[in-house]
Amino acid sequence: MDVIEYTPSREQYAYTFGGAAPALRVAPGTALRLWSDDAFGGVLRSVDDLSSAKVDLRFVNPQTGPFWVEGAEPGDTLVLHLAALEPARDWGASAAIPFFGGMTSTDRVVTLQDALPDTTWIYELDRDRNTVAFAARHSDHRIELPVEPMLGTVGVAPAGGEVRSSLVPDRFGGNMDTPQMRAGTTVFLGVNVEGALFSVGDGHYRQGEGEACGTAVEGAMTTTLIVDLVKGGAPGWPRLEDDAHWMTVGSSRPLEDAWRIGNAELVHWVAELYGLHPMDAYQLCSQLAQAPIANVVDANYSVVVKAAKALLPAADAFGGIHADLRARAATLL
Amino acid sequence: MDVIEYTPSREQYAYTFGGAAPALRVAPGTALRLWSDDAFGGVLRSVDDLSSAKVDLRFVNPQTGPFWVEGAEPGDTLVLHLAALEPARDWGASAAIPFFGGMTSTDRVVTLQDALPDTTWIYELDRDRNTVAFAARHSDHRIELPVEPMLGTVGVAPAGGEVRSSLVPDRFGGNMDTPQMRAGTTVFLGVNVEGALFSVGDGHYRQGEGEACGTAVEGAMTTTLIVDLVKGGAPGWPRLEDDAHWMTVGSSRPLEDAWRIGNAELVHWVAELYGLHPMDAYQLCSQLAQAPIANVVDANYSVVVKAAKALLPAADAFGGIHADLRARAATLL
Amino acid sequence: MDVIEYTPSREQYAYTFGGAAPALRVAPGTALRLWSDDAFGGVLRSVDDLSSAKVDLRFVNPQTGPFWVEGAEPGDTLVLHLAALEPARDWGASAAIPFFGGMTSTDRVVTLQDALPDTTWIYELDRDRNTVAFAARHSDHRIELPVEPMLGTVGVAPAGGEVRSSLVPDRFGGNMDTPQMRAGTTVFLGVNVEGALFSVGDGHYRQGEGEACGTAVEGAMTTTLIVDLVKGGAPGWPRLEDDAHWMTVGSSRPLEDAWRIGNAELVHWVAELYGLHPMDAYQLCSQLAQAPIANVVDANYSVVVKAAKALLPAADAFGGIHADLRARAATLL
Amino acid sequence: MDVIEYTPSREQYAYTFGGAAPALRVAPGTALRLWSDDAFGGVLRSVDDLSSAKVDLRFVNPQTGPFWVEGAEPGDTLVLHLAALEPARDWGASAAIPFFGGMTSTDRVVTLQDALPDTTWIYELDRDRNTVAFAARHSDHRIELPVEPMLGTVGVAPAGGEVRSSLVPDRFGGNMDTPQMRAGTTVFLGVNVEGALFSVGDGHYRQGEGEACGTAVEGAMTTTLIVDLVKGGAPGWPRLEDDAHWMTVGSSRPLEDAWRIGNAELVHWVAELYGLHPMDAYQLCSQLAQAPIANVVDANYSVVVKAAKALLPAADAFGGIHADLRARAATLL
Repeated sequence: MDVIEYTPSREQYAYTFGGAAPALRVAPGTALRLWSDDAFGGVLRSVDDLSSAKVDLRFVNPQTGPFWVEGAEPGDTLVLHLAALEPARDWGASAAIPFFGGMTSTDRVVTLQDALPDTTWIYELDRDRNTVAFAARHSDHRIELPVEPMLGTVGVAPAGGEVRSSLVPDRFGGNMDTPQMRAGTTVFLGVNVEGALFSVGDGHYRQGEGEACGTAVEGAMTTTLIVDLVKGGAPGWPRLEDDAHWMTVGSSRPLEDAWRIGNAELVHWVAELYGLHPMDAYQLCSQLAQAPIANVVDANYSVVVKAAKALLPAADAFGGIHADLRARAATLL
Repeated sequence: MDVIEYTPSREQYAYTFGGAAPALRVAPGTALRLWSDDAFGGVLRSVDDLSSAKVDLRFVNPQTGPFWVEGAEPGDTLVLHLAALEPARDWGASAAIPFFGGMTSTDRVVTLQDALPDTTWIYELDRDRNTVAFAARHSDHRIELPVEPMLGTVGVAPAGGEVRSSLVPDRFGGNMDTPQMRAGTTVFLGVNVEGALFSVGDGHYRQGEGEACGTAVEGAMTTTLIVDLVKGGAPGWPRLEDDAHWMTVGSSRPLEDAWRIGNAELVHWVAELYGLHPMDAYQLCSQLAQAPIANVVDANYSVVVKAAKALLPAADAFGGIHADLRARAATLL
Repeated sequence: MDVIEYTPSREQYAYTFGGAAPALRVAPGTALRLWSDDAFGGVLRSVDDLSSAKVDLRFVNPQTGPFWVEGAEPGDTLVLHLAALEPARDWGASAAIPFFGGMTSTDRVVTLQDALPDTTWIYELDRDRNTVAFAARHSDHRIELPVEPMLGTVGVAPAGGEVRSSLVPDRFGGNMDTPQMRAGTTVFLGVNVEGALFSVGDGHYRQGEGEACGTAVEGAMTTTLIVDLVKGGAPGWPRLEDDAHWMTVGSSRPLEDAWRIGNAELVHWVAELYGLHPMDAYQLCSQLAQAPIANVVDANYSVVVKAAKALLPAADAFGGIHADLRARAATLL
Repeated sequence: MDVIEYTPSREQYAYTFGGAAPALRVAPGTALRLWSDDAFGGVLRSVDDLSSAKVDLRFVNPQTGPFWVEGAEPGDTLVLHLAALEPARDWGASAAIPFFGGMTSTDRVVTLQDALPDTTWIYELDRDRNTVAFAARHSDHRIELPVEPMLGTVGVAPAGGEVRSSLVPDRFGGNMDTPQMRAGTTVFLGVNVEGALFSVGDGHYRQGEGEACGTAVEGAMTTTLIVDLVKGGAPGWPRLEDDAHWMTVGSSRPLEDAWRIGNAELVHWVAELYGLHPMDAYQLCSQLAQAPIANVVDANYSVVVKAAKALLPAADAFGGIHADLRARAATLL
């Protein structure tokens, strides 16, 4: 299986879902190997690089793409299988951006208080140990954490002619910032415009649930993925599948609305997969769902709601395409 | 080690945190084996028992207790180690109570829509297989799920002379409805009144995160726990510790405020355990915390925020009492 | 018409709804003239008195009462007509209490930021001009504002055996902090316990909508009110009536839930007053309701939803008791 | 003073802020008389026209515009003075759109309940009496309500290359749905793109605060307005001024965040207008602000926070342009 490689120049970065011209046209079934810059566009390189000086929040999460998928029409389901995510630099950066994050007032949760101190942390990557190293800024602590690469943003062009910042998660996917967006996961996104126009970016070498300070271990990433298409069947909100879980992602505010969206999507999906009445699916999911918070820091907050396949009878979603993609991905690596 | 057994009569059930006379006085170090009725007081025994006919939401989650802990004073830390949780009946019940739960309008999220159909599910317990059986009400599906016993409510009397329904989670613990409240977990609660006056109840044979329909597999439970006391050091919000995790529980509305509370508590706890500056603890937790939603259905919503001990250096909280209690608990079983 | 006067001693202050012994027993139809201390218990007397030193948030809004209303039973409607509110001191106080208020992080909206500076303002009352004077703390500005006396808290004992802090608004009324709670207004509260056990307090010489900083121009108040009782008919949430408006008060979090409660109550009330189908009442209220925010700072947030009588046909609520009380009140003054 | 008239053809309707080509270029100081269709594009003409059959929520609130304002650059302040709003049809329409509105679950506040019945109301306009007539659908009630024309949407192109649906209110203005957007009001909007690209639409013959059912008395409107420009000084969020009030509009979710935004903007504006320290402005606004909810039904919720000029010393905002525009508007009518 051939792999098309694509690395955008800085001028080719997109900062929106929708509104950007396609970088490439790809046929369903194509494998892509994509380089993406980090959320900050690579400008935080030492602890002396402060986000207040170097980062403009209107232009973060530079997207690699968008990609026009041949044959994709509104109502179809775009299928992206993440085959591999590999850190593309030897360091990642994180920052407490003034008035951005979960433990500070923001431009929405407005107060009259002073900002937290603008602070940058640099994480060195150790490829042998597969770790990134947290180095405290106010003491000598140094703690190595496992690298668990994920993508913060995977999305398509929105419906209704909207164009949204790559800082936003919503129905079209986008900046969902969930650790579930990792190698081995298949993503299902409803197509809103001809060609789907998907893009990826915002690689994280690791991230806690909630992404509390607003930024993960942000790092340039090389993503190998397979693009596919299911005609029709567009889910209302992003769905994820890996070998172990059925997952949905809701994004909204307040956080309970993100959960409501994700949970209702899971209930309907489980009802459909197993032929259950919605009230029975509601009951069943109540007893087995997991609900890890993805982020509480973006323009919308995101929650993943998931059901373990091991607790349920066997079932196939979208024609069993996940298993098929797993097999195809194995040939790439 | 002796174990004091206590089973309340129906007249001895308490339905509040605070406001009830102590059932027993216990010394720190005491082991208790407590029987608690299910959330419905045992009245939903078949699928024909409807909550609208049989359940008064002002009197649910009957509490076993409260227990007066000798020497406990405001500002102290009550320590409860859950040694064992055993289903005390051979069936559990769950219900979609009209206008209660996460996928319906409620008395707070008010709409003009009709209620979902009042529906009861009965789960048979198979002690050999250690499963409860979901039986669909609208089809023939039957799915066995592992028993994972937990307590919905563990709490003390609130501060400021308040008395709260056993349906409420807040600073005093209470109806947190998290699957983390299981055997092997140590609970730390700030003491607000002399004697602490803790109680337990609302056993669940299993529960999904979010407790979406508002009720778990509700079942009578036999809880074996060890009571202990740390003088001073009262945490602002409930903290949990097991062999694998440091955990905090925030409860409020909207859901992001529950998360904010839990996350800030974890940041401060990690700062204290490891001698980190709060900004460094904030950064570190951002990259390693997990944030499973506990419930989005109670009077307050609850979120657990947790840090895996395996990712962190060794540390002791509250004088290392958890390890000590684990050892003591082993002698009970 | 006789008026019973009652001024509590400091030891007689209550700090909760529910949980306090009755101060007096009164028959329906009784007029009371009640002195209440300010929210701070009168301890902020100069700009040098700081709330962080002198105020314990567990014991604010001292209540005058509770009063046992003869014949009041659960399900009845307590009727309180505010005949007159008169400032009982020549000054009022306001404060930016650390981590309390709408433009700061709080114990619920938790952040890691520093508190705003603890600041006290003293407002001198000019009885001739009927003004209170705002005096800036950081400049020489002095602005006289009209005195518009209101009560922050009017409530009864809660249901289900709960006892709530006088800082809390909910179904039982309590700390609703709405400027609508002024002379000329009739308050309808559902009775939850025998005797109703109502109390009043937290006088404000004036307050903006939202009570943004968390405190109004707090002042001791002399309240003249008439107590009455309607058997049955308990509203689910507080209702207010004055000569110009039908009003409901919803209190919850997030703020949209407070609005939803208040709006649904108004829809149902208008449906009942005019014999409209709920969908028609919903439509009608959508085009004529006003929705001033009461406060965004208390343990629950409160919203008033109101309909102007001038836009609607004539109607009587609770047997037309408001007009009757207006007439009776006129004889008192 | 000349007035440029503009009536779009149906093909010229815009459904977004940003992303549409300018309809006209206008110089600052120009007066425009603009016809706008109603929110439904005029398709609900009788009670038998149901929104579920005839309305696509991705394409509502058709905008008249956008207009390119000569000389407008990012950072400037667009000034729009509403001189006159006149109903352009003899009827208005309102609807309870399934899963849209404040008293129903929605696509964000998701539940499993059935939708409310899809219902349309037609309001006849009586130009002599200046009323619209509510006609109940389930009884014979008919209630005449005063016409109080307003615009639901007034906005500019967003920042950061975003394009937003005309259903959305945010920093750029948009679908704020406040009754304050009426004749006599001056609107100040920060310019984000060259030419500002403002548009108007969504006329309401009247609307209650909250816009509870999701739709007002929707009607085609003829709006006479004067366009002006202040170089620099862009406010962070929309500001309104009329003869009586300084006003700000916050739009976000949850509703408290909308209020926080609006209140902070008012505090900063008052601080700037009167030379007050922010803490003093915070205190002063706490005692005099009004906070009517605008809507709790759109993609973001909106709150107006306002200060009565009568309570404050005289002051001029944006060089006193409101008084100047009032005078210019008088020559138009």
